[in-house]
Amino acid sequence: MNVDLETALPALTELLTAHLEAERDEPVRLPRDPDTLRAQLDLTLPERGVGFAQVVDELHAILRATPSTATPRFFNQLFGGRDGAAILGEALAAVLNNSMYTYKVAGIQVLIELELIRRMGAMVGYQDPEGVFCPGGSLSNLCGMALARDRVVPTLSERGSYGQTLRVYTSTESHYSIRKAAAILGIGRENVVRIPVDEHGAMQPPALRAAIDADQAAGYQPILINATSGTTVLGAFDPLPALADIAEDKGLWLHVDAAYGGSLLFHPDLRAHFEGIERADSVTWDAHKIMGVPLTCSVFLARKKGTLTQSLNETATYLFQDDTDDLNPGTRSLQCGRRNSALKLWTAWRTHGDEGYTERVTRLRDNTLYARDKVISHPELRLVREPVSLNLCFSVKSAPADALCTTLNEQGRAMVGHAIVDGEPVVRLVFLDPTLNPSDIDTFFSEVLTVARALRAAAPGEGSP
Amino acid sequence: MNVDLETALPALTELLTAHLEAERDEPVRLPRDPDTLRAQLDLTLPERGVGFAQVVDELHAILRATPSTATPRFFNQLFGGRDGAAILGEALAAVLNNSMYTYKVAGIQVLIELELIRRMGAMVGYQDPEGVFCPGGSLSNLCGMALARDRVVPTLSERGSYGQTLRVYTSTESHYSIRKAAAILGIGRENVVRIPVDEHGAMQPPALRAAIDADQAAGYQPILINATSGTTVLGAFDPLPALADIAEDKGLWLHVDAAYGGSLLFHPDLRAHFEGIERADSVTWDAHKIMGVPLTCSVFLARKKGTLTQSLNETATYLFQDDTDDLNPGTRSLQCGRRNSALKLWTAWRTHGDEGYTERVTRLRDNTLYARDKVISHPELRLVREPVSLNLCFSVKSAPADALCTTLNEQGRAMVGHAIVDGEPVVRLVFLDPTLNPSDIDTFFSEVLTVARALRAAAPGEGSP
Repeated sequence: MNVDLETALPALTELLTAHLEAERDEPVRLPRDPDTLRAQLDLTLPERGVGFAQVVDELHAILRATPSTATPRFFNQLFGGRDGAAILGEALAAVLNNSMYTYKVAGIQVLIELELIRRMGAMVGYQDPEGVFCPGGSLSNLCGMALARDRVVPTLSERGSYGQTLRVYTSTESHYSIRKAAAILGIGRENVVRIPVDEHGAMQPPALRAAIDADQAAGYQPILINATSGTTVLGAFDPLPALADIAEDKGLWLHVDAAYGGSLLFHPDLRAHFEGIERADSVTWDAHKIMGVPLTCSVFLARKKGTLTQSLNETATYLFQDDTDDLNPGTRSLQCGRRNSALKLWTAWRTHGDEGYTERVTRLRDNTLYARDKVISHPELRLVREPVSLNLCFSVKSAPADALCTTLNEQGRAMVGHAIVDGEPVVRLVFLDPTLNPSDIDTFFSEVLTVARALRAAAPGEGSP
Repeated sequence: MNVDLETALPALTELLTAHLEAERDEPVRLPRDPDTLRAQLDLTLPERGVGFAQVVDELHAILRATPSTATPRFFNQLFGGRDGAAILGEALAAVLNNSMYTYKVAGIQVLIELELIRRMGAMVGYQDPEGVFCPGGSLSNLCGMALARDRVVPTLSERGSYGQTLRVYTSTESHYSIRKAAAILGIGRENVVRIPVDEHGAMQPPALRAAIDADQAAGYQPILINATSGTTVLGAFDPLPALADIAEDKGLWLHVDAAYGGSLLFHPDLRAHFEGIERADSVTWDAHKIMGVPLTCSVFLARKKGTLTQSLNETATYLFQDDTDDLNPGTRSLQCGRRNSALKLWTAWRTHGDEGYTERVTRLRDNTLYARDKVISHPELRLVREPVSLNLCFSVKSAPADALCTTLNEQGRAMVGHAIVDGEPVVRLVFLDPTLNPSDIDTFFSEVLTVARALRAAAPGEGSP
């Protein structure tokens, strides 16, 4: 009914050693057909346990059947690579198992979390920020929206009903979590006003101002401008100084969704895109994306102390018994019980320092530019947009991006996603694993061209003009 | 800028081996004064990294300074103990780092998650449930409330504004996440109607019906009855058949917050408290509490397929490109990127089987009853309530519970919490570590009596009648 940690540790080492070796042989793992997998592996939960030794055997097979997200052929999501320092912190946090609501039960782990919040707040330009780790950028964004709503309609979180329809502004390229949060918070998906972007994918301030003016004239209550620093598809940046001006003019909350882009504050050139972020009321920054720590490690930062507590604090005499609110993060969280997502980031950051992350993001950007040059110089490839940050969107002559990505994946050549730009499907390549080198990128494009040619050969009519 | 996993693994083994040894010598760790800790340990994030070897050294000290949650002297929260099987699953999940939104990127890990949802749903009595892992019971409860709201006011998540004030019913002993969720969802804290409980801590159905009747007469729109299976302080169970009758009569959503109690479905006697749970529209069940897996592992279950997707799905062409919704859990989650919280539970469950968990909860209950007998038989101790499940609330003659708990903790004797029952502070002892035996419980009470006597000696006046 309980396995000792002393028994589990050697099993972990054994499993991971085998896993690393298997990954080298098979860097892309098909997410095979569910029925086949279920037939091959018994995933059911038995009445009588199979015992630890047998489960370890089974886990070997399960690991081999799990899609790899940390190999040189994985480009599918806005995370990648694998940092042993962060994984060490994560495994320790699981063993320590402190719930991050009170200082009493989490102690020094709270101080580590506070140090990260202080430091990341300082990088954003906040003097004395408040913050909390959220389970993912979507919920960090929801935090920002909740705070914005509660500032404009302070009675709403108490009384619920209110007369006016609230409005939220975000670009057409922004993340779907803004829409989802509007639904959850009772603001309504219809009240997320999508502002057009320029050719680089950045929100157009005049269109934003016009939309707010029109809504105010129509009797709506605007509450929030959501700016994106690092859009999902193009990696684009909204112009923060202009949006901050409008937010100030109109008395709106400015939230910056830097879930993806935030870590580019470490980049000597790209950090210029964050000019004005210190004027935002709140920021979402996911360390589990570009900083390479395991999922999830999302930090929500508020410029002004007390705003999170004001919206989210509840009295709970059985829980908050000692120490000040400052040391009890449960008073400013969407959650009650909360896992420690700070130690992994602290372990990695302390190991690598700012310099390590600057080196990391520089390498990621250099890889993007290397890949951009490959696309430019090859007659069968078309660059869809100049890469603003780490996303490279391209298409392949006469090979639809969706079919191309599916085949690359099915044949175990690469895992990469596609997206829609200007109404056309494109390949969205992202560079998030700093251990990649130019030869890995060469391999990727050679796989792409091989598959594209095969697709054209299979459908010869489509290739001709 | 990156540490190999091959380098991190031996460090993990080294750190944890030392940690286990230190824990035996020092089973209660003081959450020492923050300033002292900050003076002793450099927690800052350096410009130039200190390197992996030094961080490992520092982590030794940090581990020693972190409050222990898995020793025989920890009784402070609704979790405890440590299962190596679950920790193995958790560490593997961190290394695999699959985000659980799509089958494409998580593959077999989605199937494992679906198997757990199917199985836990079946234990609840659902034929064909839908479910999702949430980062903690608070957000699982929020899910339930969001679905209830969206069923009654289906236009709200789209349009936001609505005419009527919504109402939610829950007992005075229920968890604060109900209030917090009402604030977040825009229902309003004031619209959480708190229904009185009987002497065991269970909601009184006649009072519930009267409250709903009164609200309907006053023009409010009731949406949800929240029943608690396992309250935070007393471990009490609301009477589900009576609440289900009222929910059916009134057309309300019935959510069961079994975050804490759910795992007692494994107990041969205590499972009787869950009679009628299959009639609930949704259930929260945290495996990170009684089942001993690391934080967080909360499952939200909905009786009817499609309800989660209807409230929470968003189109995202860059993300949901392959497979059916059924295999893409991102379509029914509050989150976008989501860590794998299923593998740890699967690993443990498959190891131990239902029988292992039955043995576990039987042991936990037996320990509770053993402690109850100790309290009953000792003249200086007073039993506050007969323990319904695993919570034992007691007080000590002339020793206020809050001072007692603080001193126990400060002197490194035990970490245990206090709560308010009938307006008086009481010690809330919970038994969640199955490795505890009667002698550990004897030790606990002997520490309690030692401290209580010292407190009385220090304030002699208070002890006399």
